[in-house]
Amino acid sequence: MSQARIPITDTGFTRSDLTYDVVSVWDGAFFRLEEHLARFERNCQRLRLQLPHDRAAVRNILIELIEASELREAYVEMICTRGPSVNGSRDPRTFANCFYAFAIPYVWILKPEDADVGMAAVIARTARRIPPGSVDPTVKNFHWGDLTKGLFEAYDRGADQALLLDYAGNLTEGPGYNVFAVVERRLLTPSTGVLEGITRRTILELAAAEELETRETQVSEQDVRRATELFATSTAGGVMPITRLDGQPVGDGTVGTVTRRLRDLYWAAHVSGPFVTRVLPELRADTGASPWATSNVSKA
Amino acid sequence: MSQARIPITDTGFTRSDLTYDVVSVWDGAFFRLEEHLARFERNCQRLRLQLPHDRAAVRNILIELIEASELREAYVEMICTRGPSVNGSRDPRTFANCFYAFAIPYVWILKPEDADVGMAAVIARTARRIPPGSVDPTVKNFHWGDLTKGLFEAYDRGADQALLLDYAGNLTEGPGYNVFAVVERRLLTPSTGVLEGITRRTILELAAAEELETRETQVSEQDVRRATELFATSTAGGVMPITRLDGQPVGDGTVGTVTRRLRDLYWAAHVSGPFVTRVLPELRADTGASPWATSNVSKA
Repeated sequence: MSQARIPITDTGFTRSDLTYDVVSVWDGAFFRLEEHLARFERNCQRLRLQLPHDRAAVRNILIELIEASELREAYVEMICTRGPSVNGSRDPRTFANCFYAFAIPYVWILKPEDADVGMAAVIARTARRIPPGSVDPTVKNFHWGDLTKGLFEAYDRGADQALLLDYAGNLTEGPGYNVFAVVERRLLTPSTGVLEGITRRTILELAAAEELETRETQVSEQDVRRATELFATSTAGGVMPITRLDGQPVGDGTVGTVTRRLRDLYWAAHVSGPFVTRVLPELRADTGASPWATSNVSKA
Repeated sequence: MSQARIPITDTGFTRSDLTYDVVSVWDGAFFRLEEHLARFERNCQRLRLQLPHDRAAVRNILIELIEASELREAYVEMICTRGPSVNGSRDPRTFANCFYAFAIPYVWILKPEDADVGMAAVIARTARRIPPGSVDPTVKNFHWGDLTKGLFEAYDRGADQALLLDYAGNLTEGPGYNVFAVVERRLLTPSTGVLEGITRRTILELAAAEELETRETQVSEQDVRRATELFATSTAGGVMPITRLDGQPVGDGTVGTVTRRLRDLYWAAHVSGPFVTRVLPELRADTGASPWATSNVSKA
């Protein structure tokens, strides 16, 4: 990775004109690979990017990355950029679109050793999330100026993470993750203005299977403040409890039962079942899939 | 340039976490070099980027680029990015900020041979400019998703360029340029929600010296539609007439007298005077500085 380079003239850099996707590998198997490939392809089309490979070829490249690197737990990223100008043209329709992919060790927004402490978040005051009328958040992108500003604010205020509101004052998302709130025993997550995350989708499905009431809806700042549990979801770490908000405990300040249950189910779904595309031999079967030895899946 | 690369892990790419500036070289001399250097430095500070070089060192690097390339008319870009993560940290405060610079032949958003035809623009319907509450447009950045979307819309509608409105319906800017409108003999340009362009500033100063009434103000969509002249300003091309808007002629559809006058004065300011930092010997002295042989500076 320290050698991997892109052209400085790639408008993926100089215009942030690109889309990307990230799929995880857990215990040698991709998680929901087909959904990530489908979303990536759809997002390329939405930006009128011509992916230089078809889906089968992209799939093979990602599989080869894992076979070659032998990374058993990996963060696998694919990027399609508008690419550099060809013959000095300023017309992006004529550029040579580029594809990049890499695999690195699995990325944890919240490290497993801190999983039972959780994250301290703020509701950002210095930045609102870029509105969908400007940049479509469902087309995964690197327009992170607002999220980065929120993150610096969080550090200044003694926290780790920032939740951004939209211009109507409703919750959107944080830097690299969707957000869920348990409010009056219902599991709420913003319906618009956010990435339609695949971890988010997984949690909605797992929660529904548990007969938890879920709602994709507008989540007001007040809902966030009165939530008894808050958590973030991302391919980079799964289900990550937020136990402090603006310096106050969320609920009783510990990781809540809904969060724990969904986190366990999330990792259980990585062992076997329809979401798993195995590349390397399974090794964790005996110990359970969960990264936390003390937190293996148990039926409630 | 075809060999110039940046690390794929640079968060200047993967988070668009950077600022940049572009200064032009005309007839072997930089134009308003100190203002560009000052703006770049200020913008790095605003993003809490630690520029690895002081101003004198950056200045020397840019001068060396011109001496080495012998580009007499050049587009010189300097970029400071947050850089790659160090030791796997996710905290951008700990990243190793990077500086990149390059010089390429002068870039024309509107080619000189088309300067007296002008550009055909649309007022974008499919994208609004990212609001300052999300990403500060005065900190020059690569968050171009909205501008690129507008550009594709322009092509679809048979035009070359897109002017973006804000969420209140007022004019902001286009892809890489500020916009001016002559309305009731006053020269208007948006006061907020835009880059404070150095070409924009130059035009405001030149217009004031000509005793043209200028206003930095809110420019409504209606103002744009009833303007008798419209033009774009950028380091990449100077003063660029917009002669068609949404398929209709602007004024009488030709390049207006205010636009012509300011364009001539703009190029005259590149020959000599306080804005010029000479690097290579002057060659155009005999022919005038203007790129258009037929359009040399003449007193009105």
